[in-house]
Amino acid sequence: MISAIKGHKPEGQKNLPMERLVPRERLVPREKLAPKERSASGQPYNLPDTLPVPDNFSAAKDPVVTDYVAADYVATNSIETDYIAVDWGSSNIRGWLVVKGEVKATRHAPLGITNLQGKSPLQVFEELFASWYIGQPSMLVFMAGMVGSHKGLSMVPYLRCPVALTALAEGVRHFKPYRQAQLYLVPGLCVDRPEAPEVMRGEETQLAGAFALATQQATTGHISLAEPLAEGGEIQSHALYILPGTHSKWALVENGVLTHFYTAMTGELYHLLSTQSLLKASLSQVSSREVFEEGVKAGLASKAILAELFEIRGASLLGHLQAEFTNERLSGLLLGVEIGQLSQKFLSLMRKRPIQIVGNSQLAHRYAQALALAGFKSVQIDGEQAFLAGIRSIAHAMDK
Amino acid sequence: MISAIKGHKPEGQKNLPMERLVPRERLVPREKLAPKERSASGQPYNLPDTLPVPDNFSAAKDPVVTDYVAADYVATNSIETDYIAVDWGSSNIRGWLVVKGEVKATRHAPLGITNLQGKSPLQVFEELFASWYIGQPSMLVFMAGMVGSHKGLSMVPYLRCPVALTALAEGVRHFKPYRQAQLYLVPGLCVDRPEAPEVMRGEETQLAGAFALATQQATTGHISLAEPLAEGGEIQSHALYILPGTHSKWALVENGVLTHFYTAMTGELYHLLSTQSLLKASLSQVSSREVFEEGVKAGLASKAILAELFEIRGASLLGHLQAEFTNERLSGLLLGVEIGQLSQKFLSLMRKRPIQIVGNSQLAHRYAQALALAGFKSVQIDGEQAFLAGIRSIAHAMDK
Repeated sequence: MISAIKGHKPEGQKNLPMERLVPRERLVPREKLAPKERSASGQPYNLPDTLPVPDNFSAAKDPVVTDYVAADYVATNSIETDYIAVDWGSSNIRGWLVVKGEVKATRHAPLGITNLQGKSPLQVFEELFASWYIGQPSMLVFMAGMVGSHKGLSMVPYLRCPVALTALAEGVRHFKPYRQAQLYLVPGLCVDRPEAPEVMRGEETQLAGAFALATQQATTGHISLAEPLAEGGEIQSHALYILPGTHSKWALVENGVLTHFYTAMTGELYHLLSTQSLLKASLSQVSSREVFEEGVKAGLASKAILAELFEIRGASLLGHLQAEFTNERLSGLLLGVEIGQLSQKFLSLMRKRPIQIVGNSQLAHRYAQALALAGFKSVQIDGEQAFLAGIRSIAHAMDK
Repeated sequence: MISAIKGHKPEGQKNLPMERLVPRERLVPREKLAPKERSASGQPYNLPDTLPVPDNFSAAKDPVVTDYVAADYVATNSIETDYIAVDWGSSNIRGWLVVKGEVKATRHAPLGITNLQGKSPLQVFEELFASWYIGQPSMLVFMAGMVGSHKGLSMVPYLRCPVALTALAEGVRHFKPYRQAQLYLVPGLCVDRPEAPEVMRGEETQLAGAFALATQQATTGHISLAEPLAEGGEIQSHALYILPGTHSKWALVENGVLTHFYTAMTGELYHLLSTQSLLKASLSQVSSREVFEEGVKAGLASKAILAELFEIRGASLLGHLQAEFTNERLSGLLLGVEIGQLSQKFLSLMRKRPIQIVGNSQLAHRYAQALALAGFKSVQIDGEQAFLAGIRSIAHAMDK
């Protein structure tokens, strides 16, 4: 399913066969483990309510860093090996410590790959997560996102679409042992067509996770939030996923294979326009479903943006739009334009089946609202759950 | 032709009848003046090669401030009164000293209304232009652009479209005498429709000027750059003007009346995206007509932008676009989208008659290239000449 990998191979990084990517001694089939043996580590994890932070961890002094023990997520279908999952994008880094299939702790900081505040990626990694792996004999760390680009730890070649979502593990690269941690990088995906080239890093893991959640529901008979199920309980052969964000992805999954995707720079444009353009809000902004929906309708009707953006300014100056609603109008307009444009590419599928929105609940809800205005049904899947399920499915595949 | 003026009237600013806007004693019909009397000032202007700058003029220390004597522009159809013309937008201010109908000097600085560097508008005005009016008994100053907004010197109410381009003078407001200077503010224009509200400030003066230049050519029989002439030498009854810039305007002029216009935020988006987004250029950029034109074609084909923007990133990462051409591709794409979208509103006119592009030669040339790719003819009119002709026509109208 995977085409030849394009791109240069970083020095010193061999294209290892899969069975060698994870040290054999770490891969113990679950049925062979007694419950007390399930932690691969010989030592107990030190997990107080607030995890200890190294003295030299400057990011922890930043008030936006949160550090807490999360017990609300219980992984299923997990490998028995403990691991750290890291979602490291351009703006943020977030890590989860998964012990015996359960998330024991999570940490995040605004230290994305393009925002490292003068530190190297390894420094940031160590400062944030050292207390999770120091003292453990060999902790597995799975990282996805921009960390696998040339700006991150190491460039991991993109896998080319079409690619089976269960095949991501085949492209995972071992970075290097770093003290007691074994660092693995998840590959991004690309559509390598000159007329419409596309790339993603990070979302592939969410997609694999959303798909794994659906598969699991299908096999266990539980129908729940992911719900890409036909009436008979089988997995739908085709599904459209939308992953809202700085660069929203629209991805077509056919029989478990990601065949194509598109990216809309909606989130980044919203950020730039609302903070730095003529449209930046001078008053504190107020939420308004009505104004948002009017914006969506305008965007859907036009599918264009260059002229519609300035109308927000005109409307504000001429008294047709109160200044405190500028952001709502802008948000609605951009979503309307995105949906108006990209729905053209998936129209028959979108009319037949609900769209799977994978993301944080607030943003997913906005997309669901806007999609409804355009006449489309959707279901929402929590982005964090999807990411964790994706890492789990990758770890699981490597565990075989 | 002018609808009721909407907007609040600034305190202390009366809606004077036109004949009182310009002091009577300053308005001398040209035929009554002997050549030596044509300067309204009793004293000679002090115009060395480089104009003297006040000691406290900090902006002049900025290397991007230029200050030179311009003798290459000869005004025709001018009033005999000397005046200062000021184009004061959000980013820049530019002034011209017009003596006996000729531009004697020009100064500009990056001190636009949203960029005053902590000074008041009057302070900036004085620092830049004091040497042009101090010592003169009563210098007329005509200012257009954002200076007439609530962020500028004083809010001048918009005139509503449709409005005759020769009627701008009727909305001019006397700000106040400031030392030896009489400050007049040119009104902006608006389209006051809730479904598509539009505003402009500054471009109305360029439009009036471009129209005046065409009229003048029609009456003198000279056909030149402005050229909105039918074959018989008459002024075309309908013409589409494009004024490229931070916020590009597309304006429909019918029988000398500006009936409608649209704004595309192309220039601002280009600036934001090329300097602050994921698409910002990391290498020094190289110009390439080919890459620009490919971008235009992509934009024309799609008329959309959200998905196409990210393709630039994808193309760069996958080796389909060299990094040093990112800006050319982006520029072409945005222009293609603008033309693809807004041409829909003027299609039959654009197919019949050349479009009048009013702007600086480099940008106007790009628009002409992109329009040609879309199958439209265009002519280019220098934006500075148009602005000066516009101020002249306003001054002339007030001089009657």
